[in-house]
Amino acid sequence: MRNGFCLLPLALACAGAPLSAIDAEPAQLLKLRPVPFTQVRIRDSFWAARQETNRVAAIAINLAMLEKAGNIHNFELAAAGATNGYSGPVFMDSDLYKGLESVAYSLAIHPDADLERRLDAIISKIAAAQQSDGYLDTYYIVKEPGKRWTNLRDCHELYCAGHLFEAAVAHYQATGKRAFLEVAVKLADHIDSVFGPGKRLGYPGHPEIELALIKLWRATAEPRYFNLARFFIENRGRHYFAEEHHTPLDRYDGSYWQDDVPMVEHQKIKGHAVRAAYLMSGATDVAAETRDGALLAMLDRVWRNTTERNLYLTGGIGPSAQNEGFTTDYDLPNLTAYQETCASVALAQWNHRLALLYGDARYADVFERSLYNGALAGMSLDGTRFFYVNPLASAGRHHRQEWFGCACCPPNICRTIASLGGYAYAFSDDGFWVNLYIQGSASARLQGQEFNLDVATDYPWDGKVLLRPRLERPAKLGLRLRVPGWCHGASVSINRRRIANPRVERGYLVLERAWDNGDSVELDLPMPVQRIAANPNVKADLGQVALQRGPLVYCVEGCDQSEPLSSLYLPPAGQWRAEKEETLLGGIVAIKGAVEIAPQPSPDGGLYQALAPPRRVDIIAVPYCVWDNGQPGPMQVWLPAAPARGP
Amino acid sequence: MRNGFCLLPLALACAGAPLSAIDAEPAQLLKLRPVPFTQVRIRDSFWAARQETNRVAAIAINLAMLEKAGNIHNFELAAAGATNGYSGPVFMDSDLYKGLESVAYSLAIHPDADLERRLDAIISKIAAAQQSDGYLDTYYIVKEPGKRWTNLRDCHELYCAGHLFEAAVAHYQATGKRAFLEVAVKLADHIDSVFGPGKRLGYPGHPEIELALIKLWRATAEPRYFNLARFFIENRGRHYFAEEHHTPLDRYDGSYWQDDVPMVEHQKIKGHAVRAAYLMSGATDVAAETRDGALLAMLDRVWRNTTERNLYLTGGIGPSAQNEGFTTDYDLPNLTAYQETCASVALAQWNHRLALLYGDARYADVFERSLYNGALAGMSLDGTRFFYVNPLASAGRHHRQEWFGCACCPPNICRTIASLGGYAYAFSDDGFWVNLYIQGSASARLQGQEFNLDVATDYPWDGKVLLRPRLERPAKLGLRLRVPGWCHGASVSINRRRIANPRVERGYLVLERAWDNGDSVELDLPMPVQRIAANPNVKADLGQVALQRGPLVYCVEGCDQSEPLSSLYLPPAGQWRAEKEETLLGGIVAIKGAVEIAPQPSPDGGLYQALAPPRRVDIIAVPYCVWDNGQPGPMQVWLPAAPARGP
Repeated sequence: MRNGFCLLPLALACAGAPLSAIDAEPAQLLKLRPVPFTQVRIRDSFWAARQETNRVAAIAINLAMLEKAGNIHNFELAAAGATNGYSGPVFMDSDLYKGLESVAYSLAIHPDADLERRLDAIISKIAAAQQSDGYLDTYYIVKEPGKRWTNLRDCHELYCAGHLFEAAVAHYQATGKRAFLEVAVKLADHIDSVFGPGKRLGYPGHPEIELALIKLWRATAEPRYFNLARFFIENRGRHYFAEEHHTPLDRYDGSYWQDDVPMVEHQKIKGHAVRAAYLMSGATDVAAETRDGALLAMLDRVWRNTTERNLYLTGGIGPSAQNEGFTTDYDLPNLTAYQETCASVALAQWNHRLALLYGDARYADVFERSLYNGALAGMSLDGTRFFYVNPLASAGRHHRQEWFGCACCPPNICRTIASLGGYAYAFSDDGFWVNLYIQGSASARLQGQEFNLDVATDYPWDGKVLLRPRLERPAKLGLRLRVPGWCHGASVSINRRRIANPRVERGYLVLERAWDNGDSVELDLPMPVQRIAANPNVKADLGQVALQRGPLVYCVEGCDQSEPLSSLYLPPAGQWRAEKEETLLGGIVAIKGAVEIAPQPSPDGGLYQALAPPRRVDIIAVPYCVWDNGQPGPMQVWLPAAPARGP
Repeated sequence: MRNGFCLLPLALACAGAPLSAIDAEPAQLLKLRPVPFTQVRIRDSFWAARQETNRVAAIAINLAMLEKAGNIHNFELAAAGATNGYSGPVFMDSDLYKGLESVAYSLAIHPDADLERRLDAIISKIAAAQQSDGYLDTYYIVKEPGKRWTNLRDCHELYCAGHLFEAAVAHYQATGKRAFLEVAVKLADHIDSVFGPGKRLGYPGHPEIELALIKLWRATAEPRYFNLARFFIENRGRHYFAEEHHTPLDRYDGSYWQDDVPMVEHQKIKGHAVRAAYLMSGATDVAAETRDGALLAMLDRVWRNTTERNLYLTGGIGPSAQNEGFTTDYDLPNLTAYQETCASVALAQWNHRLALLYGDARYADVFERSLYNGALAGMSLDGTRFFYVNPLASAGRHHRQEWFGCACCPPNICRTIASLGGYAYAFSDDGFWVNLYIQGSASARLQGQEFNLDVATDYPWDGKVLLRPRLERPAKLGLRLRVPGWCHGASVSINRRRIANPRVERGYLVLERAWDNGDSVELDLPMPVQRIAANPNVKADLGQVALQRGPLVYCVEGCDQSEPLSSLYLPPAGQWRAEKEETLLGGIVAIKGAVEIAPQPSPDGGLYQALAPPRRVDIIAVPYCVWDNGQPGPMQVWLPAAPARGP
């Protein structure tokens, strides 16, 4: 139940509660179009600053690290016909592609001739490495020539190709240049010549290419790319990896690769988390076109299982380091939470696709949760260090690293931040949808004219949003504003007149009228500090609560407290206030309050001991996304709701 | 550590913490003299009202019930030489004696010619039943003639004799009449002719006669009675009951009767609780005279074990119904607490003896705790119903009864209330000691003159006490005022001048000066509401706290609350206020406060649930001693310190 306008502050199911519309009848496939990142401007203090840091620090560091680690040199080797000297793991190419994708998005936001020249130079090297038949994977070209497509399960050729497609499409959209896109097309054509009906069976050990082929299809209008994506989706689960590796079927558990059953038969999220979320993203893209009821039903089922039983409060997935993925429902440990940065990004991408498909705010709720918390934590405030693993509690030994031997995460969060504008808005023929509240503007071609929307807000620090459409002439359309699932008591005014009972559809306020220049919409999303409890089935969080304000999940860091974290708790009657801290962690709204730390009876004391009054201890909580921006130290998202019992 | 004047409100060991003076060297045996009940007047709203109820209701009901149950008829049968018709258990005589002891005390407080005539008539029947050799026990006379002294272990002859001695001494002190005392002397002489050095070995299965013989010795100055008491104490533990019942020694565990080891070897309190406490009382009386170091050391050791590990917060002992006694250290369950009313009375009596012996306030602390809580709860406010078992928590099925087949408890609490004045004061040659603060007066012959002390106070509801000595001429002596162990920050003024650093000795304020008429002492014992925790070794109370104010332990009764007891808790930061309630439970100070009952996450809700603000729920706590004065209902002394964790 979404409670945007519920006046009673009843316990709210923030995520994953059933939506009766979908239960009752097949949901309508709205297939909204996203407003592309090129049509969105971000001019706020939160994301604009991060995009700038991303550009000047993180992306530059990514390129330098990729250079240093040999990711680019691998292409030079391949172009030169070398058969040794390859550096790094089998999926090195993909990290470079994600890095380049980040650069492309960044160029669209902030033109930079030097950076663009550098990008073009790398693209030339990539093009030079491409084989005459279109094949391109430096690992196989340099290190294992002649062994192409022999180990789809483990060797990431299709995964790397997918990231090339994504980077190439981004580059084309950002710059209008076709050089990279042509490499992508040649590679896609090559792959299409190998796999497909009447050709080879096969699909990627690490899904990703499916969603990338859809992007390439949309950029080129070449239906073979869609069909190939559909082929990969619809054939998955035929135990290809067992055959490939001569594994007897009775000893084959394909669940790690989501290859245990055909796609339509999945009952729950399983296996490697990033694989699972990319796969569901591609499946969503395919189902949006095929309108395959069984595939859509599977997606709904698995999405519910994910968000109702396998999602961290911070919007990440995959609790276990052992398989970088899922274990059993409700297994969400905090200290050992894996919650890979890439998995948060992948889950956000899947939910973005579902949000466009159904126009239902609950998907954007999950997107927002993943983005502002699990994903954003992946990068330090100064853009120089990265988390691969994102625990929800630390004893003080977890700290962002400069780079990783397996460097999938840094460029993944870089490209997400750089392309963020593309996730914020969507439109249909008669409506304009606002999913994320970010100061700036967006525009889309609607009803034969340019529809512009200017947005002023201090979100996520404040829930007041002022929206002003700009049009060439008045146009009747529905402006749809997401009421976040965390929000109670949202209110809206048009031209300063409060709308008494605004229409709410699938979590969106629907403001339908003939909009004209000069109109203004004031949306107010109250942001009290919320005490959040987990479903009691989550044993790791039993008796514990977390603080959330707006979309941000908070945590307590040892460095901010006067007492050890082990003595802190978050009582029901606590008074928590949000306070702007301009100088702390780059400027945040901190949550402050005090708890009473009570003396405990001592085993060395008498049989009965009068307890002295509790000591008042201040607590400062900071957004989870900015934790660990100093010396390594202890951190907890969840704290007990009550003081610890005696010794 | 006693902290009467400690300014820092540190956790206080209320009971049982070691006292360094005794550790360091043998404590001085002060052997204070009690101011007898005949020399004390009680004129307050708390005890005077209870003494009046005791007189008009409880004692009258006791006599009626004893009559109805056949306790008196048994004597008529014995006097008539009957050999059948005996009613009730083997110890019927003792219940009558305790009832008569109550009547005697009551007559001293409130002369009542009808009642005195009735008492005399019953005493005549008792005297008539006494055998020519002095033997008196209606069970053996009527039911098992010829079998005297054949089953000391189980058949209570010596126990009944002890209660006869106590009643006879009380009657003599209260009325000056010797009739009952003469019966006692004849019986004691008979017993002395049977047991003792060079005569029979033996001692009571249920100790009591030891302390009673000491009383008889003090009333008559006959040293044989002291010697017989000493014989019973010093020979106990010689496995007489094994011999008596032909139990092989290797199969004999005498601990139930404290007959497992010689008295001086006891390391801890054990066995049947009432037996243990009466035995230790008698042993204290004997040791006070013999100054036997081993016996004194045993008493100290066992007292520490009792109060440091085996005492309920309500001052009762004996957790187990199975043996009406002790189990293992720190085993203090609440719902199944046995805490027999007689055991609280017996423990109080033992501590009164220790208080007189050592002049150390910690013994009076335990006396006060037992008296105001575990013992006093034994009688309903209207004096018509009684508890035998006193649990510290009830699910609602525990309720005072009109009478019991085993009716030891009702007359025991009756005699305690009627004789209360006798426990309040003590004196030495140069000092006057105040142990209990009760409005009224006391007098003692000191330094050749009558020393009177008038006391005005609303104790236990308020800690302000005004004391005014009245003398024939000025006298230099130490007025010693107990600072209760529960009290922090006590202050005292003499003639309205605050004493800056008063001398404190063994828990007593020592006010030494030449007292004169017109002097006044104002003692202020602050009575904030205290949150009490048990030593963490008490598993039953882990994570729980209780409320205490002054000497009174409080409880919550279901009937007073708006919420089920299971949802209530007592948080460290709770604001608890004491509020006079003139119409509630006969007029009490209730403890009131509010707790926040927080909604819990539901397993049927979402994966994460924003918790609504807590509901404010008022709590009313009432003194434990007045619980269950309405319909039976749930009750708890201990409540969790924090709200229950989710479902």
